[in-house]
Amino acid sequence: MAEPAKTLDGWYCLHDFRTVDWTSWKRLSGDERNEIIVEFQNYLSALKNTEEAKKGSHALYTIVGQKADFMLMILRPTMEELNELETTFNKTKFAEYLLPAHSYVSVVELSNYLPSDQDPYQSPEVLARLYPILPKTNHICFYPMDKRRQGNDNWYMLSMEERSSMMRSHGMIGRQYAGKVKQIITGSVGFDDWEWGVTLFADDVLQFKKLVYEMRFDEVSAKYGEFGSFFVGNILTEEAVPKFLHV
Amino acid sequence: MAEPAKTLDGWYCLHDFRTVDWTSWKRLSGDERNEIIVEFQNYLSALKNTEEAKKGSHALYTIVGQKADFMLMILRPTMEELNELETTFNKTKFAEYLLPAHSYVSVVELSNYLPSDQDPYQSPEVLARLYPILPKTNHICFYPMDKRRQGNDNWYMLSMEERSSMMRSHGMIGRQYAGKVKQIITGSVGFDDWEWGVTLFADDVLQFKKLVYEMRFDEVSAKYGEFGSFFVGNILTEEAVPKFLHV
Amino acid sequence: MAEPAKTLDGWYCLHDFRTVDWTSWKRLSGDERNEIIVEFQNYLSALKNTEEAKKGSHALYTIVGQKADFMLMILRPTMEELNELETTFNKTKFAEYLLPAHSYVSVVELSNYLPSDQDPYQSPEVLARLYPILPKTNHICFYPMDKRRQGNDNWYMLSMEERSSMMRSHGMIGRQYAGKVKQIITGSVGFDDWEWGVTLFADDVLQFKKLVYEMRFDEVSAKYGEFGSFFVGNILTEEAVPKFLHV
Amino acid sequence: MAEPAKTLDGWYCLHDFRTVDWTSWKRLSGDERNEIIVEFQNYLSALKNTEEAKKGSHALYTIVGQKADFMLMILRPTMEELNELETTFNKTKFAEYLLPAHSYVSVVELSNYLPSDQDPYQSPEVLARLYPILPKTNHICFYPMDKRRQGNDNWYMLSMEERSSMMRSHGMIGRQYAGKVKQIITGSVGFDDWEWGVTLFADDVLQFKKLVYEMRFDEVSAKYGEFGSFFVGNILTEEAVPKFLHV
Amino acid sequence: MAEPAKTLDGWYCLHDFRTVDWTSWKRLSGDERNEIIVEFQNYLSALKNTEEAKKGSHALYTIVGQKADFMLMILRPTMEELNELETTFNKTKFAEYLLPAHSYVSVVELSNYLPSDQDPYQSPEVLARLYPILPKTNHICFYPMDKRRQGNDNWYMLSMEERSSMMRSHGMIGRQYAGKVKQIITGSVGFDDWEWGVTLFADDVLQFKKLVYEMRFDEVSAKYGEFGSFFVGNILTEEAVPKFLHV
Repeated sequence: MAEPAKTLDGWYCLHDFRTVDWTSWKRLSGDERNEIIVEFQNYLSALKNTEEAKKGSHALYTIVGQKADFMLMILRPTMEELNELETTFNKTKFAEYLLPAHSYVSVVELSNYLPSDQDPYQSPEVLARLYPILPKTNHICFYPMDKRRQGNDNWYMLSMEERSSMMRSHGMIGRQYAGKVKQIITGSVGFDDWEWGVTLFADDVLQFKKLVYEMRFDEVSAKYGEFGSFFVGNILTEEAVPKFLHV
Repeated sequence: MAEPAKTLDGWYCLHDFRTVDWTSWKRLSGDERNEIIVEFQNYLSALKNTEEAKKGSHALYTIVGQKADFMLMILRPTMEELNELETTFNKTKFAEYLLPAHSYVSVVELSNYLPSDQDPYQSPEVLARLYPILPKTNHICFYPMDKRRQGNDNWYMLSMEERSSMMRSHGMIGRQYAGKVKQIITGSVGFDDWEWGVTLFADDVLQFKKLVYEMRFDEVSAKYGEFGSFFVGNILTEEAVPKFLHV
Repeated sequence: MAEPAKTLDGWYCLHDFRTVDWTSWKRLSGDERNEIIVEFQNYLSALKNTEEAKKGSHALYTIVGQKADFMLMILRPTMEELNELETTFNKTKFAEYLLPAHSYVSVVELSNYLPSDQDPYQSPEVLARLYPILPKTNHICFYPMDKRRQGNDNWYMLSMEERSSMMRSHGMIGRQYAGKVKQIITGSVGFDDWEWGVTLFADDVLQFKKLVYEMRFDEVSAKYGEFGSFFVGNILTEEAVPKFLHV
Repeated sequence: MAEPAKTLDGWYCLHDFRTVDWTSWKRLSGDERNEIIVEFQNYLSALKNTEEAKKGSHALYTIVGQKADFMLMILRPTMEELNELETTFNKTKFAEYLLPAHSYVSVVELSNYLPSDQDPYQSPEVLARLYPILPKTNHICFYPMDKRRQGNDNWYMLSMEERSSMMRSHGMIGRQYAGKVKQIITGSVGFDDWEWGVTLFADDVLQFKKLVYEMRFDEVSAKYGEFGSFFVGNILTEEAVPKFLHV
Repeated sequence: MAEPAKTLDGWYCLHDFRTVDWTSWKRLSGDERNEIIVEFQNYLSALKNTEEAKKGSHALYTIVGQKADFMLMILRPTMEELNELETTFNKTKFAEYLLPAHSYVSVVELSNYLPSDQDPYQSPEVLARLYPILPKTNHICFYPMDKRRQGNDNWYMLSMEERSSMMRSHGMIGRQYAGKVKQIITGSVGFDDWEWGVTLFADDVLQFKKLVYEMRFDEVSAKYGEFGSFFVGNILTEEAVPKFLHV
């Protein structure tokens, strides 16, 4: 029997993609739209308060192309909180002018490489990565992925040694992008349709392409990576919300 | 010719996922909404009466993410009863404010490992598993699955010995989660698009991820498991329904 | 060049699945609904007359789960008659309250195993199977299927001997279910997206699962069967239509 | 490097499938419907004029099952003309009562087997096949297809000799259906999602099944054919249009 | 570890496909439609100004078949500008009469074959290709593609030498179409669901088919090419917009 990788798990995560129904939105009066924008800003302020209290984090980005108009990524200590935030949002007036576009449910995940006599949950560095305050970079990139299980290319039939060695080489590529791309891995086995979600943050959007493309030549991706839809977007600060929604 | 596994079959099962049309729901008056909530509670009470009479069981959970807002899982002795409950629900006032999101038709299934001179349907333990009262844990996880039939990885071409041996090892992993995760397997060959539905119940949602991930390294999943969409959610008690639907 | 199987072909077949738009249906007055129910019953009576004249047959079943609310299966001597019945139905008042859910176009098909000096179309037994009056069992199961053509598992590259031998063994399993499950095979090569439609009739719905599951271990299914969506349902007699549509 | 097959290309082709919104259609007054039928008949008359001038051709068939209600297949010398006809149709009053169901863009294609010192575009037989007047048979069948490129079954890696030899054997089967089935091959590489469209015409609809099924045992289909959705239908003459649309 | 190809990256690119809701469009008065056409022409004029200032480029083409009615391809120096143009367009009155049909996000990409001591971004030829003014040919063809990673056919596991050699041979085919077909390759790894978008421009639409078909026999496509949907269309000049939208 193959030996499963050990994981450390942090905050639960919801990626929530929405499309604006601009036609209905424009039919509102300016006053009605302003009221709704304030309602949405209040929602975002509540998220911000939670983030400042270090009880969660979030990120708001517009999405380029027709897949969605914006994406709100939320981290919270429990699945119940995620669900409540989602339902609260769905009940807002703003949500009446939005269409669901895509969502993803997962949990922040780290591979555990610490010596086994240490409690990783006592390491400040580990904690900072399990309960991260999301960066406010110019750009975001999200995609889900699986490890392949096909014929001779079956990740889950490899030995721990083979997997560890390939993951190390993979990590080396990632390290070359340190300072350029920040990566949050969330695990979704048992929670959503793929095994992992990958969320990348960068100020230079081209670094997403360079990183993902370079990794694709690495054996772990080349032979064992299966990828879902890619979403790319630009930061939508709370201040820029009125301009984004201005019609 | 390969020897098919023997199965024991219990109550028929419908997993019924729905999305709330919050915009229409909000357009109702408070009185209308209350009336509908009462109607839904009465529907749930009838289910509860059946459960108390041990003539069936059910579970109601919200679902995280855009796949659905809630899921009602119903167990009944006949396919006709499932169908009637579904149609009755579709005719309720509440259903006018819901969108179908997904459904799954199956029957509670056990593999028969008892000595062949015993009638499994006389075993109280077997009966309790074929006609289970569903747990009221904090969380639920549902996904459908197939056994792979692809090139050299063809479950149905293996001998009974090979299959039994792999299933035993698989069961060992499950047993490590005893007390943490309760699993209901329902068979859907001939009833729905996948061969089985897996419904997991746990108070700690992370156990779903740990269990499914650990199993994925086991040969029976690694080489022979094909998985559909995963749904994860939080319990929605009858008492919490008004709060869930409050706008 | 491989030798194609010879087929005998009987009545053309349309499986027509529909979902009821209950919200719109409920908005009608009781009188309007009654009028529509009578219109539908008249449509069914016309089908019944044709069946009694042995110029066709049909079956009406509700479907469990969200895939559809009911299915009407119609057999007729020509594709034109099927098309006309379908169009006539689409023009009814009832159809305004239905949504298309799925359909399948095929023709009753038998493999020809008679000695080549006999005209199978003179055999009463063959004729009864090519132009069958559909059973009125409690339950129905429908699914489409292909024979696999993938790498080394390519049904169409096997010799006639290999195929015949496997089909014989396959038929042996079917024969064990004689009296429990009645099977109608319809061919759809050139007519619809899969190569065959399989329609099963049984009074005990569990027999569908047992039969399909047992067959899956047989080489012809295990290695060469590709299956589409499965639909399962309960008989909807003409008399029960008002109750089914009562709101 | 493999040697590509040489093709001769004729008229451009649009297969345009539509579903009738019968509910809206019935809400019109009889006068309005008649006006729209006349508008549609005028559209068809213009197509007929073009056909009589041998500057194009077309075929109108109803489609059996829920995939569409009818299909209009149009051949024209340029892609611009196809596009204009499509847009003109979309702007008609009739189109307001239709839903797009499927479409396919391609060009009539022949394999060039003439000796290389002859200009095929001077051969009357070739010209008649590149610029065909579509038959008015009782039935039509349409499906798109690819040549497989999978592992060892890669059509495009075969030598010209292997491909030619297989295509010859394939053509032999087709020839047995001469007089029963007329076949128009249209190429869609670079134009639509599959490599070819196959349109079959026959007075006996069963010949579609026999031809496609027999061919499936031929190596070129068995190992190298990938098939899309199949559409089958009945001729809808201009005279029968009012009856088809009568409600 | 395989050596990734080096790429040069130019302007960001959005392919934006839309379908006209002709029914709603026709319900407008002639004055309202004219106003909207002027609004759209102003939008296009702004794009033209940017193009004349060489700060971007764009192309507007109708699309044949039901996949879309037209496609606007826009090139800009930043992802933010693309996003703003898209959002601005979505807020126009015109967009109220359009349905999203498809979109694609990418960046103009060149393989870097210059000697490593030269800065490609100083080469006028390279710059002209990275920041291209799109041609105004009669026809356009767009499709996305991946390099295959399947079993033994895994592009990303090949050596740089093997890949370079195959790409050279591939390029030779392309060169034969010089003057007939202009090709813009955009990379979309990390930005959208496929690895590349291919946009072809030609005055003779048949050249798309010839080029793509000939390339399909080349090993790099035959063994390693995976293709998405193909879109083909005709130029829609700014002057022709009123005629296109005339009803």
